[in-house]
This record gives sequence, C-alpha cells and structure tokens, in this order.
Amino acid sequence: MSVTHPQGFLAAGVVAGLKSTGKRDIALVQNLGPSQAAAVVFTSNRAQANPIIWSKQVITDGIVSAIVLNSGGANCYTGSFGFQTSHQSAEAVASALGVSAGDVLVCSTGLIGVGGQDFRDKVLGGISAVAPLLSVTGGLDAATAIMTTDSVPKQAVVNGAGWSLGGMAKGAGMLAPGLATMLVVITTDAVLDSPSLDAALRAATRVTFDRLDSDGCMSTNDQVSLLASGASGVTPTLAEFTTAITALCADLAQQLQADAEGASHNISIETINAANEDDAVEVGRSVARNNLFKAAVFGNDPNWGRVLAAIGTTKADFDPYDVDVSMNGVRVCKSGEPDEPSTSVDLTPRATHVLIDLKVGTATATILTNDLTHDYVHENSAYAS
Amino acid sequence: MSVTHPQGFLAAGVVAGLKSTGKRDIALVQNLGPSQAAAVVFTSNRAQANPIIWSKQVITDGIVSAIVLNSGGANCYTGSFGFQTSHQSAEAVASALGVSAGDVLVCSTGLIGVGGQDFRDKVLGGISAVAPLLSVTGGLDAATAIMTTDSVPKQAVVNGAGWSLGGMAKGAGMLAPGLATMLVVITTDAVLDSPSLDAALRAATRVTFDRLDSDGCMSTNDQVSLLASGASGVTPTLAEFTTAITALCADLAQQLQADAEGASHNISIETINAANEDDAVEVGRSVARNNLFKAAVFGNDPNWGRVLAAIGTTKADFDPYDVDVSMNGVRVCKSGEPDEPSTSVDLTPRATHVLIDLKVGTATATILTNDLTHDYVHENSAYAS
Repeated sequence: MSVTHPQGFLAAGVVAGLKSTGKRDIALVQNLGPSQAAAVVFTSNRAQANPIIWSKQVITDGIVSAIVLNSGGANCYTGSFGFQTSHQSAEAVASALGVSAGDVLVCSTGLIGVGGQDFRDKVLGGISAVAPLLSVTGGLDAATAIMTTDSVPKQAVVNGAGWSLGGMAKGAGMLAPGLATMLVVITTDAVLDSPSLDAALRAATRVTFDRLDSDGCMSTNDQVSLLASGASGVTPTLAEFTTAITALCADLAQQLQADAEGASHNISIETINAANEDDAVEVGRSVARNNLFKAAVFGNDPNWGRVLAAIGTTKADFDPYDVDVSMNGVRVCKSGEPDEPSTSVDLTPRATHVLIDLKVGTATATILTNDLTHDYVHENSAYAS
Repeated sequence: MSVTHPQGFLAAGVVAGLKSTGKRDIALVQNLGPSQAAAVVFTSNRAQANPIIWSKQVITDGIVSAIVLNSGGANCYTGSFGFQTSHQSAEAVASALGVSAGDVLVCSTGLIGVGGQDFRDKVLGGISAVAPLLSVTGGLDAATAIMTTDSVPKQAVVNGAGWSLGGMAKGAGMLAPGLATMLVVITTDAVLDSPSLDAALRAATRVTFDRLDSDGCMSTNDQVSLLASGASGVTPTLAEFTTAITALCADLAQQLQADAEGASHNISIETINAANEDDAVEVGRSVARNNLFKAAVFGNDPNWGRVLAAIGTTKADFDPYDVDVSMNGVRVCKSGEPDEPSTSVDLTPRATHVLIDLKVGTATATILTNDLTHDYVHENSAYAS
C-alpha cells in the first residue's frame, strides 16, 4: 500500500550494503502513467546535497518517471564526484526501466560527507538489484529502505472520489528535521498537470511539514516529491485535491513528530488571535526552538515563564504584558500575570498542548515540536549521523 | 576587590531568605562619588521584567548612586504589584543610604512569575540587612549573592594609568543566557561623563557578552550596569577606557562560558574572511545555536557536516560550496569537500575551536558557546529555574 495504493505505481526496497546494520537502504518508485506529471518541494538550506542539485534539474519540465532514494549516506559536500554519482544513479534507473534519466529524481539521506567510490558502487549495485523487484506490493519495503533513525516506517493513504493519494516519509521535520533529512514521496492517480500539483503540494507543505519544527535544525537533503500517474482517469478540483493532500501531509507530519528521536512529549504550540498568520507561526516557532522550554517539558515542569521569554524575542504584533498562556487546558498566565497555579497542570501525557492568546487579531497557527531529552542528546552525540 | 577595586565604591551581600538553599541572595553596591555618572545596557527581549522597567527610568538622566540585586526570583510577569516591589526596593535603598530612589538601579534574577508579597517582604528585609554592611571588602559577598546556578562567583579587575575597573557577573550570556539571566555590575573610578560611559559600554558588550551564545535563549532580566565614581581624578581617553572595559567584559564573558550549566566543552566559533562583521556574527551564531552540532561536540564527534548545514541557513554572503572548516586545527572540509579525515581531530579537550573560512572578504568574528549535554538537559528539566 502507501505509495502503491494509487493506481499506476510500483515500488521496491532492497539491501545495498550502505547501512552498517545490513537493513534495506535503496528504494525505488516508478510511475507507470499514463501521465508523468510531478512537483517537488526542496530544502531551503543554501547548503544543498548533490541529489537535490540533480533533482532540481529533473523537475524543471514537470515530468518524473521514477524516484530512487537511498539511506546510509547524504552525498552532500562530496563535490563533483558526488554529483556524478547522483547523475549515474538516474542513468542506472533510466536504463533499467527504459525511461529518460532526465525524468528520474534522486534522494539521499545519511551522513554529510559520505559519497565516495564505495558509496557509488553500492548505490549502483542497489539500483540493479531493486529495479527487477518493482511491484504493487513493494510500498512497505520502499518505506523501510528510506529509514535512518526512524523506529517505524511511515505511510499514509487518502481516498478521493475515484482517485487516491499514497505517501511515505522518513525523518522528523522539513524546515527543521530532528535528524538528518526529511524525505517524502507522495503518489496519486488523479489527473492533474504539473502546475496544479505544484500549487497543491506547496499549499499542503506550508501548513504541515513547514510547521513541524522538532529541533530547529534544517537539513541539506530535504525533498518532498509528488508523482501523478493519471491512471484513475478522474480529475478532482484543485480545492478537493489540495484538501486531500494536506490531510495526507498532516498525517505523515504527525507520524514524524511521534517518532522524533529521543522525544518523550509531542508538543503542539497553538497561537491564537494573532494579527496575521506569519505572526502566529513566528510566535509558535520561537517557543518550539527554545531549549529551556523544551527541557522543562521533558521534566514535566509547566514553566510558562520560558514561553513568555521566548515569544518576547519575536517581532510579532502583541503586547508582551497582555498575553494569556495555557498548558494542557490550564491557564497559567493571564494578561502577563500568574493565573492558575502551575501545580494544577499535568504534563505527564505524551501529548502536550500550549495555547498562546495574543489578543490582537484573528489569525491562528499550530507548530508541532518535541521536548529536549537525555535521549535526544544521546542519539545525536553517541553516533555520527 | 572586584566591584570595590576602584576607589569610591562599597559593596555587601546577605541572606534574605529568597533562595531555598539559605545562601546569600541580596547584593548592594554604592557609588560614593564624587561623580555618579552611569550607563546601562538592557536585554533586547520585549518581555521585560519589572526591575528592567524600573531601571530604564533610573538611567534616563545618566545618574546612579547605588544598585541593588537579588537572586531567588525574577520579578517578571508579576504585574503592577511586582513593579511596585521594584520601586519600593529602590526607595528602601535610598532611605538607607540617604540618596534619591530615582538614582537606584534594581536587578532581579530567578524564576519568572515569582514576585508576590513573600518575595517583596524578603527583598525589603534583605535591603535593611545589607545596607549597614556596605564596605570596601564586600565585593565577594555581593558577587556571591547574585549567583543562581553559577558554581563560582565571577569577578574581574583591569587597571589603567591611575584609574581602574572592577566587575562582577552571573549567568551565561547576554543575548542568549544559558540559564535565566545575565547580570553584570561594572565599576570604575575614572572621570567620565554618562555619554562617554554609554559609548564605551555599548562598544564593549557588542563584541563580548553579545557574542556569548550559550543556548540561544534570551532572558527577560539581562542588565549590564556601569557606575563611575570619578574618585581617581583621572580622565582616560575614550579609546583607552573602551579598550580596558572591553578587556574586562571579555574576561567576565569567558568566566560565564566556562561555568555554563552542564557544559563539557567551551566552543569558540571563529568565522574569517567574511564580507562584513555582521555576516561573520550571523554565521558563527547559526552554528552556536545548532543543537545537532552542539550534541556532536559533546560526543567528541567532529561532525563538520552539521557546521555546513547550519551556516547554509544564513543569509550571509558566501559560496556554500567554497567554504573551509577546521576543527581544533585540522581542516576537515576544503572548498565544500572532505579534506583531512575526521578521525584526526581530537575533541576531548574542553577548549574547542571551530574555524570557518568564508573566502569572500576580510571581516572576522568569534562566537562563544557550549556543547549540548545530558547535564544541560538535566539542570533545565529537573529544577524550575
């Protein structure tokens, strides 16, 4: 299921030897058509991996026949040799599937600086091995092959009226992944052209992956790819399609948040009554990136002072002395003064809700993040990643 | 010594009962003159504690007779009652010393939201107790009374030609303190007017405390105060004075970095050959605020990929594929490709040096930060602060 849920898609995942654990590390997804329209959203980091540079060229004409993804090496900061490896990967897929290399997206995830001869040999070997295995039942293997520190594969489907969407994801956040990279592949059998797909994908990622901010660290390899086969013969309205793909992305984003490395709390920071949506996002993000607040949540300490100290660093329109803050339903700060006692807040559930009322307008946004834990420090210090 | 090293100053520190540990928690410093010129730099956080709001009024005329500081409560987000407490504190000092309340600075540090009747009672009681103890030997007691999670008091002196500077500090960073607040009191017996003191103080903090970025979290209570007695009768040039106060602030900033909570590495991030100083600061700060990089340093892992991923998020002028990165003297990345093997980098020393060569100009800046450790998480989750 997942990426092979919509009609017209095959997938597979194999072991290429890139992961020291010996687990699956090469995934391939093919679009059988009849359409090969596509859209891609890339990392906004200026430091971009070679597969990103390659894929940006591929998507310029809005046509994608297949996407190959590897874990076990980011192929980033590996110079022209690394770029040639991405190019050769696309050529190898093209040769195996009888398509054009210029229509093959490439994604990599893993350690920056890994992308030498051994990496190239294993990737190309993996492509030879994975192509013959493509099938309509290969979605889970593909989703498994892109995992890095993920503890479970992430998949989702959404059904429309006679058409559907499927998706797989790895990582923990687009603009701010918790570990290395977020890679997402979304498939659909709806009949839509590339500009429509692009508009819907950007609308969806803006309010889902872009608002998942696990640790404020933006990756060099983030890529969200949308492939449309048109095999259903059905053309939904752009509004219908946008609603459906937003739901799919929200589902995958929540799975990423729930599996964020080392986290013990899933924190939703909801900012209400902001002057505009940008302000609401900025305020929520400032809290999501505040280590002191995130460590307090780990300790089940409803430290609302750290929320106010965080939002005070923003340029958003509000009166710092007329803000209400609630945590898990208890208003601990009213108009900038202590309200209900902090001791009445129960932060032991994994799901944590912070509500910030700016009292200046009507705009709202919710940022998803995680707490800062011993396990986060351990996972990011004990192993290179 | 310290704040009582220059002529014309008295200091003291006592136990007022604000700290649950029973340690000293109220400090008082008096300027005996003949001059009472002063300058203050405040937090840029829009969420400002009541003592900040009070002290901003005091400094408008450039005259300060005394400064009273408490630990054990930030008196922030405590409403008009809290502001009245700051006001009453200044009145109490004024009454005890026979000066004007409008010339008394107030500083607080501790938990946001603490500032009720019990806090007020203890602060006012502490002021009654501390005023009679003022002496030229009270500097260490004062420096001790402003400590929160600091493990040692921080003091420094610099001698000029016939005049001197003294200082005390607590916390870990001005624009981005590691825990709660950074408070600094600097004294001098040089003869300088308030505008000159202000110019020198801003020049000094800009390249010292402003570049200490332990964990990216900006406090509501940060305050750096400079009091000048004129008791030496000597007027240094502004250049001489600025050089000396910059050295004093750099000394205190290094003491703050070395005592940052839970840290096991003092990291200096030096950016060279930037187009301008702002770019160099932005690049260094992006690395200093990258949790993945900071956790890697804790694990003694020279993960230069995380440096490049961090600086790629900035708007600074450089080519992301033509940057060199060295760690502790080993160039691990040259022109965006792997250079010396990471295994040749020894990150076990506490002092860690990261050198980033942007290759576009001649500007340089160094940002000081710390690693992200289990102890950091522990100290900020296990205790409210």
